Amino acid sequence: MKSEILETSISAHTLKIDNDRLHQSIAELAAIGALPEGGIRRLAFSHEDIKARDIVRQRMLAAGMSTTVDTAGNLIGHYPGYYTEAPALATGSHLDSVPAGGIYDGTYGVLAGLEVVQTLFDNNIRLAHPVEVIVFTDEESTMIGSKAMSGQAPLDTDSYAGAAIQTHLSRVGGSWENLLSARRNTHDFAAFVELHIEQGPVLEAAGNPIGLVTGIVGQRRYLITIDGRASHAGTTPMAMRQDALVAASQVALAVHHIGHTKDNIISGDQVATVGSLELKPSVANTIPGRAEMTVDMRDLSNDCLDRMVEMLEAAIDKIAIATQTRIQVQPKLRNEPAPVNSHIHSTIATVCSALGLETHSLPSRASHDAQNMASITDMGMIFVPSQCGLSHSSAEYTSPEHCAQGANVLLHTLIQLDRHYRCRWETAALQEAAG
Amino acid sequence: MKSEILETSISAHTLKIDNDRLHQSIAELAAIGALPEGGIRRLAFSHEDIKARDIVRQRMLAAGMSTTVDTAGNLIGHYPGYYTEAPALATGSHLDSVPAGGIYDGTYGVLAGLEVVQTLFDNNIRLAHPVEVIVFTDEESTMIGSKAMSGQAPLDTDSYAGAAIQTHLSRVGGSWENLLSARRNTHDFAAFVELHIEQGPVLEAAGNPIGLVTGIVGQRRYLITIDGRASHAGTTPMAMRQDALVAASQVALAVHHIGHTKDNIISGDQVATVGSLELKPSVANTIPGRAEMTVDMRDLSNDCLDRMVEMLEAAIDKIAIATQTRIQVQPKLRNEPAPVNSHIHSTIATVCSALGLETHSLPSRASHDAQNMASITDMGMIFVPSQCGLSHSSAEYTSPEHCAQGANVLLHTLIQLDRHYRCRWETAALQEAAG
Repeated sequence: MKSEILETSISAHTLKIDNDRLHQSIAELAAIGALPEGGIRRLAFSHEDIKARDIVRQRMLAAGMSTTVDTAGNLIGHYPGYYTEAPALATGSHLDSVPAGGIYDGTYGVLAGLEVVQTLFDNNIRLAHPVEVIVFTDEESTMIGSKAMSGQAPLDTDSYAGAAIQTHLSRVGGSWENLLSARRNTHDFAAFVELHIEQGPVLEAAGNPIGLVTGIVGQRRYLITIDGRASHAGTTPMAMRQDALVAASQVALAVHHIGHTKDNIISGDQVATVGSLELKPSVANTIPGRAEMTVDMRDLSNDCLDRMVEMLEAAIDKIAIATQTRIQVQPKLRNEPAPVNSHIHSTIATVCSALGLETHSLPSRASHDAQNMASITDMGMIFVPSQCGLSHSSAEYTSPEHCAQGANVLLHTLIQLDRHYRCRWETAALQEAAG
Repeated sequence: MKSEILETSISAHTLKIDNDRLHQSIAELAAIGALPEGGIRRLAFSHEDIKARDIVRQRMLAAGMSTTVDTAGNLIGHYPGYYTEAPALATGSHLDSVPAGGIYDGTYGVLAGLEVVQTLFDNNIRLAHPVEVIVFTDEESTMIGSKAMSGQAPLDTDSYAGAAIQTHLSRVGGSWENLLSARRNTHDFAAFVELHIEQGPVLEAAGNPIGLVTGIVGQRRYLITIDGRASHAGTTPMAMRQDALVAASQVALAVHHIGHTKDNIISGDQVATVGSLELKPSVANTIPGRAEMTVDMRDLSNDCLDRMVEMLEAAIDKIAIATQTRIQVQPKLRNEPAPVNSHIHSTIATVCSALGLETHSLPSRASHDAQNMASITDMGMIFVPSQCGLSHSSAEYTSPEHCAQGANVLLHTLIQLDRHYRCRWETAALQEAAG
């Protein structure tokens, strides 16, 4: 039976994904790398990662897709569109996990994308654009998959710290030597929409099933090293100390204060965190001589981030003088903010409204492959709630109902975007033919 | 040649220790357990400790002393007095070190005591009282030597954490089964005077060669455990965090503030330190869920310490509420303050004045065997300067001149105390005979 192009508006109530099938596929993938205590360990390039990719590839084939693996190891399922030359409407996420991760992070977005295509296939529906479901390589560490696809992957092996990247890539069908070939460009995609669990507590607290992501935050990360002087905790009078922990505590509270600041530049929606702090020595009867700590700051606006960094530097200058310590700040990471395309954002909102699903707008303060894809195509993101906001944890949980709702929003968002981008593409194609 | 009892006042200028011999013996002992990077590793009960004790025992014999080892492994050199029944004037310290310690800590006090007796012996001088030079067992960890001698050693093996105490004691000639026999009482001693490096920067900063110790501080140590909630540093909004490090930083600064407080109860001479802080997890992109930290507080007055603890508890109550964390405080150590006998203190001052040595009064804020001896006899302590205040370090250094000055102060302090306690003892003996 030949698939028909979807010409008319489909009522939100007539086309739905198969909730049970989605639930079962989440359970099936949860077994690959399952840990005794719950959750999964499915490190990128591991046997478990490879096994999960194989299962997903078989599912892609069963859903009427052809599959390819690019030189960055990205697994791409391609569901043909009515116009074979049209750019792809793409969705996807990742199958790899942190060492003790949850079963939804990444995997849910891949499986929901697959379920959307399966639903189209089962209903003999073909969109004007091809639909791609992409499994990106190593999201949790190097993000090499989405970086290579968007032309941003570093080409020196040192940038893939600790990883024998050549060997690793070849295990998943990639090729380090030909990494540049993974690059795709603006003409290849109409749009990219990633569906993901929130990994935070905002949607649950708001009581809304769908998160309308406003953008992916930029991120600045620093390593701060404080040198005081280690000395005896008894015999060194208070006035003669250079206590690295006293300085570090003041820095940690300055960072906390920056996180809570709101003014005409700072959004009030930023976060700022000291996640790691280590003392040398760290024993009860010695004044700590050295402290190493990380600072992580995130916001949608670079202006806001610049101001936060200024505040941090000013605070550190004062603290170094007050505590007679030497404080060094080393930049370790800088990710630019990735804006969400406003049309995609409003399309998701319209779809949710039609489906009767309440929404909550929020930034994504975690990194996602979508932030890289945003540099080559229009990007959007949909969040579903994470119970207690937990992620990167065996306790990560999103209810089957929320999983199904998110997948239906993705389905109808792609359908609506197909109509929008089809008009643009047809107009452009006509102009080209006329020219 | 028969030794003569020292009947007359010896001019400070006529009797002196042998500076070179003291210097050489310090160098000789510095070789036992010497580390390639300098300093020593001479853990209690180790082969190095045993070797150092053997050398000292030979030196004791050469200085006219008899030697015994008690059931706590304390090595005791006994230099007979004119009155064989008189209580001993005792001095001494320890030969064991921390894992990477300096060559003066403890060892200097033992060798200076030995040098004092050698000087008496070389000059055919006998005091009214016997003089004892004591090498206490395991000062750096369990203090079992001075605790057992003063009747304060715990009798359960669990109190000697990680140490097979039975085996250890037998290695140095002690006996766990008979530990109680090491106990001595008030009648056995006239006084105990310990000479030690300051291990702090006060004397060097003051520019004075001799420290008149006013007492050994009491010490309170606590383990503080803070339970917040580990969560994603990006996805958790500032207002929804329970950050264990923010709480720990506030506790650390409260402790710092307590250390700098001065009022009608708090002396202004106290110290308060957070030496150890560990986070779980401690990674850049996660809000720390748990913090464990130590608090160490020291002062000469229990009233002051009580007030410091009250301030700490009040601060912690407020911090727990403000940060939405649970904070537990576990007492880990309590040492009572040990006062220095006022007559010994003034005797040391008089001796220094006669020797033309400037003094500086200060508390000992480190622990010493003298604090245990103070519970059974009159106790005094003499400090010499530590370069840059460094101790428990290969960089620990006290100049030969300061070492010699301290030993001469000890020599003449013992001579002066001999006269003082002899009067007391003779009076008591006469009264007993009359009664």
